Amino acid sequence: MNETTPARHFEEAAVSPRATPAVRIDPAKLAANIARMAGIAKAAAAELHPHVKTHKSVEIARMQVAAGAAGVTASKPSEALVFVRAGLPSVTVAYPLMRKEAAAALMTAAKGTGSRLRFIAAHAVHLEVLEAAARETGSIAEVFLKVDTGLARIGVTAGSGAAAVLAHILAASPSLRYLGLLSHAGHAYGAPEPARRAEIAAQELAQLRAVQAEVAPVLGLPGRISVGSTPTCLGAPVQRGSDELRPGNYAFLDMTAVRLGLCSPEEIALSVEATVIFAAPGRAVIDAGSKELSSDKGAHGTGGDVGHGRIEVVRGGQSHVLTVARLSEEHGVIADPDGLLAVGEQVRVLPNHACAVAALAPRLWLGDREIAVDARGCTD
Amino acid sequence: MNETTPARHFEEAAVSPRATPAVRIDPAKLAANIARMAGIAKAAAAELHPHVKTHKSVEIARMQVAAGAAGVTASKPSEALVFVRAGLPSVTVAYPLMRKEAAAALMTAAKGTGSRLRFIAAHAVHLEVLEAAARETGSIAEVFLKVDTGLARIGVTAGSGAAAVLAHILAASPSLRYLGLLSHAGHAYGAPEPARRAEIAAQELAQLRAVQAEVAPVLGLPGRISVGSTPTCLGAPVQRGSDELRPGNYAFLDMTAVRLGLCSPEEIALSVEATVIFAAPGRAVIDAGSKELSSDKGAHGTGGDVGHGRIEVVRGGQSHVLTVARLSEEHGVIADPDGLLAVGEQVRVLPNHACAVAALAPRLWLGDREIAVDARGCTD
Repeated sequence: MNETTPARHFEEAAVSPRATPAVRIDPAKLAANIARMAGIAKAAAAELHPHVKTHKSVEIARMQVAAGAAGVTASKPSEALVFVRAGLPSVTVAYPLMRKEAAAALMTAAKGTGSRLRFIAAHAVHLEVLEAAARETGSIAEVFLKVDTGLARIGVTAGSGAAAVLAHILAASPSLRYLGLLSHAGHAYGAPEPARRAEIAAQELAQLRAVQAEVAPVLGLPGRISVGSTPTCLGAPVQRGSDELRPGNYAFLDMTAVRLGLCSPEEIALSVEATVIFAAPGRAVIDAGSKELSSDKGAHGTGGDVGHGRIEVVRGGQSHVLTVARLSEEHGVIADPDGLLAVGEQVRVLPNHACAVAALAPRLWLGDREIAVDARGCTD
Repeated sequence: MNETTPARHFEEAAVSPRATPAVRIDPAKLAANIARMAGIAKAAAAELHPHVKTHKSVEIARMQVAAGAAGVTASKPSEALVFVRAGLPSVTVAYPLMRKEAAAALMTAAKGTGSRLRFIAAHAVHLEVLEAAARETGSIAEVFLKVDTGLARIGVTAGSGAAAVLAHILAASPSLRYLGLLSHAGHAYGAPEPARRAEIAAQELAQLRAVQAEVAPVLGLPGRISVGSTPTCLGAPVQRGSDELRPGNYAFLDMTAVRLGLCSPEEIALSVEATVIFAAPGRAVIDAGSKELSSDKGAHGTGGDVGHGRIEVVRGGQSHVLTVARLSEEHGVIADPDGLLAVGEQVRVLPNHACAVAALAPRLWLGDREIAVDARGCTD
């Protein structure tokens, strides 16, 4: 289209001229995604402890619990504190604590609300911090040992001897209680083939069993097995012996999940509504950029050369799929070779990484209702 | 180092165990960066209208004005509104307005504080929106035409005839006043060679002159020339005929600026303080991930294969430079082949894109003082 083609007037646009960008969650799709994972956990006789880093919302966490989740999982201690203060039945802090003050604040809050706190440790200092906070607050800190099963991030590894060292510290402390082993097979995000994902899930459990054998003689009990990533939970059989699952992204899903074959675009619950603010031959420009969509291509740095989001446009009953080809901070440039999009039109972008979008969003819309992003900005 | 090497105790660490991650601005470096650009503008006899999308802080904007800036430039209307309400002398809204309500809110606020508002338009609908809001609020909307000089994002192009069409609309409206032409040579971020950047800056001005010749017959005046990007302002001679400059990133700078040869790492004013939460052979893991550092490699999608931040470690008087090799949402994995970093240690990350980091930050520290991120979350 020509740069100065008069824009279709807002009155004629399919969508009302709401302020954009807006991050909107489809309530029916959210409910379906929550129910689907609840069903998977139930069928596997595993507890579900969904990760709230995806939505940072107490309201959505309560929906997950209402659908059968045993509690939630959080990342940073300040994020966990929001869900403890909200009284979620169980909050797993799947992040090592480095400051006694942060651990003590969690323990004190949990005493007030009755939330059960579960921590992780992968290094002696993590146990030292938890022990000091537990002593200070008169608590017992329940602790998973974090096992690295291939993501190469945080965790003890099978055969390194590290787990047994930590087990001895745990066994010796009256303020610490061993819960079991916890892992996150995030490297499954790099495995588009279902067979490879199944292999990763099987290897994960084998490694957890090996570490279990290392710590059981010290601790006298094998402990629980806690696993969980959306690609392994949705895209591979749940391994026998998994006592609990901790996926996060599944509640929203995104184009990364589509590319992994975990869902269809129609099942993605979170989208970014944006307005076409300019059009020129070959491109349309929207008011959502990297400050709304993030520059993430996938989770854990996966993704490759995939663009920055999917847009479906229907014209004359025909569906056309367009891609956000590049991002500036406040602009998204859509490759639109046929000039389908008109200035003033509103579009819906399915992003690469829903968790990153929700973390950037100043507010979330659940249908037409604004909901609180309770743990917004909880980065420490 | 071994996974279970006891951590150095916090007491022994070089940095106190402050809550991390923390986004900290060095006041002396910030002042030097602000003064440097003020000097460049003064030497070129050009007004300076720095872009606040970099810091979103009224306090820093006021420092820029105190150093000689004529006003500020903002992106989204809600961002601009913050600086109008704060009474900055001039606020250039370098983003096309699509909603009359947003434009009217800006105009009403400007009447209250006396801020001078300056808008842009690149399409008839942008002018329609401004005209409707100006009529409604009894204002005159002052407007730059936005010219695309090679970034291929938003703007009319020389020779397309689009500028003259918009000029006719401007000339015919008693509610609109033509200010001049405005461009952003963001494609200079893709030009590491100074000669290529100088060429881009020269081409930018030549194109603006060409558009000026297209609109002058209609409007009877050539109008101002407003240009500005940090790589052209810091890394190329300011072109004769530039009436004003609108760089943003220069206040903080970042590793993108270092890679373009615009500054040294020592001149970067913004850094992310993080704590080493785990270490294993070949890597150290910090508590800053894509939710703090962003996944940006550079501005406007530039950057390539450059890692996610620079860390300098001094050991025995020797400086070692490490790189954040990969990111998860809440973790940064540093390639640390020599095992320099110990669990519990605090490090300072120089990020790829300071503007993205500030946009993610729940708070900014100017030295040891927390300052407001006044336009935080102003995405619409």
